[in-house]
Amino acid sequence: MPTATATQKFDIKKAVAELQKLGADLYHKDFLLTWQKNDAEIHAVLKIAEILKEMHARNISARMFETGLAVSNFRDNSTRTRFSFSSACNLLGLAVQDLDEGKSQIAHGETVRETANMISFLTEAIGIRDDMFIGKGHTYMKEVAEALDDGHKRGVLNQRPCVVNLQCDLDHPTQSMSDLLFIKNHFGGFDKLKGKKIAMTWAYSPSYGKPLSVPQGVITLMSRFGMEVELAYPEGYDLLPDTIKVAEKHAKKSGGSFKVSNSMESAFKDADIVYPKSWAPFKVMERRTALLEQGDHAGLKTLEKECLENNAKFKNWECDEKKMALTRGGKAVYMHCLPADITGVSCKAGEVAADTFEKARIGTYKEAGYKPFVIAAMIAACTKKDPAAVLAGLMKQNRGRVL
Amino acid sequence: MPTATATQKFDIKKAVAELQKLGADLYHKDFLLTWQKNDAEIHAVLKIAEILKEMHARNISARMFETGLAVSNFRDNSTRTRFSFSSACNLLGLAVQDLDEGKSQIAHGETVRETANMISFLTEAIGIRDDMFIGKGHTYMKEVAEALDDGHKRGVLNQRPCVVNLQCDLDHPTQSMSDLLFIKNHFGGFDKLKGKKIAMTWAYSPSYGKPLSVPQGVITLMSRFGMEVELAYPEGYDLLPDTIKVAEKHAKKSGGSFKVSNSMESAFKDADIVYPKSWAPFKVMERRTALLEQGDHAGLKTLEKECLENNAKFKNWECDEKKMALTRGGKAVYMHCLPADITGVSCKAGEVAADTFEKARIGTYKEAGYKPFVIAAMIAACTKKDPAAVLAGLMKQNRGRVL
Amino acid sequence: MPTATATQKFDIKKAVAELQKLGADLYHKDFLLTWQKNDAEIHAVLKIAEILKEMHARNISARMFETGLAVSNFRDNSTRTRFSFSSACNLLGLAVQDLDEGKSQIAHGETVRETANMISFLTEAIGIRDDMFIGKGHTYMKEVAEALDDGHKRGVLNQRPCVVNLQCDLDHPTQSMSDLLFIKNHFGGFDKLKGKKIAMTWAYSPSYGKPLSVPQGVITLMSRFGMEVELAYPEGYDLLPDTIKVAEKHAKKSGGSFKVSNSMESAFKDADIVYPKSWAPFKVMERRTALLEQGDHAGLKTLEKECLENNAKFKNWECDEKKMALTRGGKAVYMHCLPADITGVSCKAGEVAADTFEKARIGTYKEAGYKPFVIAAMIAACTKKDPAAVLAGLMKQNRGRVL
Repeated sequence: MPTATATQKFDIKKAVAELQKLGADLYHKDFLLTWQKNDAEIHAVLKIAEILKEMHARNISARMFETGLAVSNFRDNSTRTRFSFSSACNLLGLAVQDLDEGKSQIAHGETVRETANMISFLTEAIGIRDDMFIGKGHTYMKEVAEALDDGHKRGVLNQRPCVVNLQCDLDHPTQSMSDLLFIKNHFGGFDKLKGKKIAMTWAYSPSYGKPLSVPQGVITLMSRFGMEVELAYPEGYDLLPDTIKVAEKHAKKSGGSFKVSNSMESAFKDADIVYPKSWAPFKVMERRTALLEQGDHAGLKTLEKECLENNAKFKNWECDEKKMALTRGGKAVYMHCLPADITGVSCKAGEVAADTFEKARIGTYKEAGYKPFVIAAMIAACTKKDPAAVLAGLMKQNRGRVL
Repeated sequence: MPTATATQKFDIKKAVAELQKLGADLYHKDFLLTWQKNDAEIHAVLKIAEILKEMHARNISARMFETGLAVSNFRDNSTRTRFSFSSACNLLGLAVQDLDEGKSQIAHGETVRETANMISFLTEAIGIRDDMFIGKGHTYMKEVAEALDDGHKRGVLNQRPCVVNLQCDLDHPTQSMSDLLFIKNHFGGFDKLKGKKIAMTWAYSPSYGKPLSVPQGVITLMSRFGMEVELAYPEGYDLLPDTIKVAEKHAKKSGGSFKVSNSMESAFKDADIVYPKSWAPFKVMERRTALLEQGDHAGLKTLEKECLENNAKFKNWECDEKKMALTRGGKAVYMHCLPADITGVSCKAGEVAADTFEKARIGTYKEAGYKPFVIAAMIAACTKKDPAAVLAGLMKQNRGRVL
Repeated sequence: MPTATATQKFDIKKAVAELQKLGADLYHKDFLLTWQKNDAEIHAVLKIAEILKEMHARNISARMFETGLAVSNFRDNSTRTRFSFSSACNLLGLAVQDLDEGKSQIAHGETVRETANMISFLTEAIGIRDDMFIGKGHTYMKEVAEALDDGHKRGVLNQRPCVVNLQCDLDHPTQSMSDLLFIKNHFGGFDKLKGKKIAMTWAYSPSYGKPLSVPQGVITLMSRFGMEVELAYPEGYDLLPDTIKVAEKHAKKSGGSFKVSNSMESAFKDADIVYPKSWAPFKVMERRTALLEQGDHAGLKTLEKECLENNAKFKNWECDEKKMALTRGGKAVYMHCLPADITGVSCKAGEVAADTFEKARIGTYKEAGYKPFVIAAMIAACTKKDPAAVLAGLMKQNRGRVL
């Protein structure tokens, strides 16, 4: 039996009732990009995630599937996300079957349509990570989703499995929503996030080609909650223009703000939260995608060399105690999607100083700890007509998850 | 909850009663070759498959194992069959553990006997795909089965796991029985299949070395149901002589017919069903087996080149609208085990024209959709002393598979 | 339903009561080395293993987890242990997720600490095999365990997953405890083992670099049960000195004996049990570890050549009928962890003659058959505050594992 780290304050019944009131409808839909979801839908997923996390802490079974498959399709290596997805599916009662296409193969059209159906006869959820190729990942997920719609409508599939974006070229919703729950609980509620300043900044790393989906996911989501979002990066390290527009629109609507600067210090100044993380410029990622498609290994090597040299100009973009001292009361919450490049630990010079990371370490673990429940919540929201009723039923059943 | 695509006409209780009456006994046996099974046994598996498919559509749990392992042993790559097997096992409550021996390794004698026991202490089913080597696949499966018999009799194993042939050098029973259920339901019953003409034909493909088990499985099974089976291929593309004999014998007994020709047009003429599919001549497969065993890479390259050149002489063996027009009323059912080599889609020239395939596409998906249930039925039939009673119990329990 | 090979003599209720009386407390601990456990703890795990094995034979569900993950981390290839672990986890209701770090990578410090937490949010057990590197395997497992303690105490993890040693550089507890149960049941009780002579001997093999953990595990465990343990190997094939000291200490305390010799014949003389098995000298393993860490492929080749040449001097260290005739009444129990190098079967000259092995074959399979239950027992003992109560509850529930 798990040691109860259940937060006594969290009232599951109340939360289920609030979920019901939200009136969100994600049934037979997918979770691909947060900005395609309305506020009620975002809040519904967050609410379900918190309910599931609390049920786990209290040893109440959240099994809503007696049998059923979940498909994991990782087109890029991943340990953390793989375990988060496995954990999420297992919590709900689904068994994971990996779909391994080979990392180099980019399936198109006919193949996607057919494969999506062939793997789905008894499947309830499909988690996809495809973040390597700019302009491809989200497109691929949409193709899968459309094939499932078609297969379900035409009687090939008894059920419509949901597609969950486990990271694409545009967004990383399971990460950004875990990040959001972490700071929401840190500050004591969504209303407390209003007016808080978050610095989403680039940071130096000796590696190259890190995806853009984390910063893009963070600026587009946090700007919905009335936060003061400052995105900072060295000149040239732009994100996809479309995601900038989304962040601007969200900030306007929510009464927060969105600002882009080229100074880590500017972003850290009076920040309540800092999120320093390396990424590659989106134009580099576009060139890389083209080279990968052409199988141009020499070109890829040249590009890598060029990028690493350029990165090296910005070694001072490190999150250290000096920069942390600039934040509000010197006490900003440090966030990272992990693993961080820690100076003197995982590399010679990296995103964050060792002492700064060590102080924040357990916090980042807890931040990551929301992810399995966020994924489970997305699956529950998209496969249940009335998730609140299902959760109420599980609470009433009150079956021990563990004897 | 799955959208009910349940066929209202299908009466599960009646089907269970019919299953009971068949009096088939597959308990503690394996499912390796359809022609080793009597009619009652074939019908029992088909009946269980249809019952399980209907239970799934109606959201009734078919879980007959609280715990238990299923072993998947794929000696050749496979996405579709892997998912079908995983789905089948999961539907019944079994967890899949892959046995990965490395594709190049051919285990013999002592190793097979030992490994079969070592992986089976808590195992209920073993699915094997071994179709690369003529004269090997079925032999290997028999060795595994004998080792399990021995281990079970001598007290090593508490239970006797069943072996399910997921494709060998001789037969592909999970495919042919899915194919059979598809046409049985298309035409409205087994009695409606009598006298129907099925054209099992070779078709051009730019690849080489495709297994013979699909055509062999189809001609040997369909000939049992009183169908007019015409097998057509270009000279030299013979199947294993033994399977031809089986088809002849079955046709005689069932009142159907079996004919071999060298003309796609002849086979398509007035056909009710067409199944155009590429394969390699069995003599080529024999040479290939020898070369693979010798590790003769140069020899393999030469053989491949030779075969592709020979294939290229028969590019006109493509299923297109012209040939379809020869079929009964121009409306024959098109079948394929998928993936098909579609001209202009997956290759320059292939087994089937794009427009012909597109018309049949959803049909082929539905054809494939029987496979998980056929596999599950084989496992249920071979591991339960009284599968009808188990199914009746599950119907009475009427537990929702999904909340 | 499994064929009942249940031993009618085994009284589960009585065994559960005995377990309760042992008063062992392994809750929130790990199972890494048998010599770190007191007698009550060893007996508790053995008792649980036997209860679970009997429940399986009687078709009583032992599912104590409704959901939950188990992580398998194999840093060396393994089929048998992988299946044992999967089977054990499945028996208890856990789903296995593999952690694949790549065999060559040796994770240290920060990475271990972080990864241990990242994979554990919903995890109940972590099985690790890491036996390639002298001085590393056990150290790594301890690091994982400490990280889990920290994560659990600091609120990152709701539950404390247990770590199970599936083979390290020092010990192979799941093997040695399966071996122990096999001979305990062969001779009719732990008290019957007192005074029995066991010959743990080196044997010739044409391979090199076999781990030391099996002989080390056997001499340290069997010496606790009052047995006369003789360890025999050709000069130079020493085990780790620390494990020799443990065996000496145990023998003294238990009233048995522990002796090292350089003669297979001496060890076999009047032995009740023989365990002839190849291993590499620990000094060779130390050199190998250093070379592996340096990536010195030439050095590794030289070392291998040198070792195989040295091995070849001792081809007469084969267990054959002549040597078996030296044992007590010529009827010693032959043991092996499998796979054995069998002369004329799996190699030209090996650890055991073909006829000798064939006589013992089914016995060695039964020996292996305890392992899934030993692993399951370790997990149950380390994750349950009161395993006897959980088992009593399962017996009362009396749910069929298989319909």
